[in-house]
Amino acid sequence: MPQILYGKPVAEKMKIQMKADVQQFKNKGISPTMAIIRVGSREDDIAYEQSIIKNCEAIGIRAVVYETKQDIPMEDFVKLVRMVNEDEEIHGILIFRPLPDQLNMEIIQDLIDPKKDIDCMNSVNLQKVFEGSGDGFLPCTPEAVVEILKHYDIPLKGAKAVIINRSLVLGKPLAMMLIGENATVEICHSKTTQLSKETSAADIVITGAGKAKIFGKEYFNSQSVIIDVGINYLGSEMCGDVDYDAVKEMVSGITPVPRGVGTVTSTILLRHVLDAVGKNA
Amino acid sequence: MPQILYGKPVAEKMKIQMKADVQQFKNKGISPTMAIIRVGSREDDIAYEQSIIKNCEAIGIRAVVYETKQDIPMEDFVKLVRMVNEDEEIHGILIFRPLPDQLNMEIIQDLIDPKKDIDCMNSVNLQKVFEGSGDGFLPCTPEAVVEILKHYDIPLKGAKAVIINRSLVLGKPLAMMLIGENATVEICHSKTTQLSKETSAADIVITGAGKAKIFGKEYFNSQSVIIDVGINYLGSEMCGDVDYDAVKEMVSGITPVPRGVGTVTSTILLRHVLDAVGKNA
Repeated sequence: MPQILYGKPVAEKMKIQMKADVQQFKNKGISPTMAIIRVGSREDDIAYEQSIIKNCEAIGIRAVVYETKQDIPMEDFVKLVRMVNEDEEIHGILIFRPLPDQLNMEIIQDLIDPKKDIDCMNSVNLQKVFEGSGDGFLPCTPEAVVEILKHYDIPLKGAKAVIINRSLVLGKPLAMMLIGENATVEICHSKTTQLSKETSAADIVITGAGKAKIFGKEYFNSQSVIIDVGINYLGSEMCGDVDYDAVKEMVSGITPVPRGVGTVTSTILLRHVLDAVGKNA
Repeated sequence: MPQILYGKPVAEKMKIQMKADVQQFKNKGISPTMAIIRVGSREDDIAYEQSIIKNCEAIGIRAVVYETKQDIPMEDFVKLVRMVNEDEEIHGILIFRPLPDQLNMEIIQDLIDPKKDIDCMNSVNLQKVFEGSGDGFLPCTPEAVVEILKHYDIPLKGAKAVIINRSLVLGKPLAMMLIGENATVEICHSKTTQLSKETSAADIVITGAGKAKIFGKEYFNSQSVIIDVGINYLGSEMCGDVDYDAVKEMVSGITPVPRGVGTVTSTILLRHVLDAVGKNA
């Protein structure tokens, strides 16, 4: 019987603990607060912002939005980030990306106080992922993948995990995190030959190819656990990288899209705000 | 017919280019210089130091040794590193490890000027390896592995490479470098189950287990290319991780130990001194 690895039970369990943590902070007079920095007013950004604010409210986290005009000069943007860095009432900072061309991303990402860097943009935090030191912020998506695997008691030690993605926001940090869990990790990508041979020999397959439903039955076996990180659209239908309907009956476990990884990722971001309260104490 | 992948031809080819580079620098009045910082006088360190100095001389690189007493206080050691950082006549800095307990390695490694950090100790440089940005210093051993593979025209794009090591000085950075070359990369370690199944399915196997001759025929196939990074001793005999005599006739290519990777690693370190001249210009 295949197991559908929904994100909701994972997120719900996290939220129970998070609400308790918020209460503890409030008892000490601390109101956990996230700053959202948004440049311009793209429709996507505003929809994302509203969903974050709603999620924050449900947990008791305060969200403060800093909106700037689309053509804000680099100098003014740097001042804004510095101001938010120094504001003791702000614990975590999220900057919406991509930024317009006049804002130098490389400089800005390292400008964020590493202790407030809830989206793991600063290279100090990314470096800690590489080192496996565990005391920085992890990038939210790979952390969500590991959270789901652990929630559903998928064995990681000695398991073989194949990751189809080699980016700095998913594949590379996830590889480091799974190695830290004593998994054997293989990183595949667009240049991998015989990809289906690689994936079907794995215990766990994490897909982050960004192509709708490209992975069918031939990529998996009856023991496969699939974590589908892809968010794609076929017309108005949101779907993952895996051909979910074709595959779900044959494998051991699979995350749906939607209602899978994304649900947990957004909760991880909020948990980072609470982690940040501790780091800024 | 198996190919023995000796390090010497790789190093010799590099040295021809390096000597030409040294001549160009000298024509401009620049004398490429490496500082060696050695704490105490361990026999191993002194033997290593002498071999570096000899190699430097052969290429025309100047080597300056800073020897301190074994019990040098942290404060004085920091001053020494700062002084060498600021010395415009020093281009590259090598600090012998391990350091005695009173010296905080984590602080010291990030104290080295990233532009003089020829042994890739500073996390700024390690971070660049992770990002694949290519403008920092790479750790010498994994860079030597890639240099050997390229010298012997071993195809990397689409090849499957298995690395038996997950350390920050070998396995992790090597994985990043091979992914950058478009190889499919699998990281194995002591918790990997069925290791021989993993390695025998690979095109390239890089061993860094640090155990004498533990990998016999069952780990490889007739197409395997083996890069043996292990340096082990059986009595007074230096040997690699691979059972070289048992394996060498059956595989496609193999580095011997000694006269394999180590020969190239020490040359990479010197090439970094010349790279550092450019970075400090």
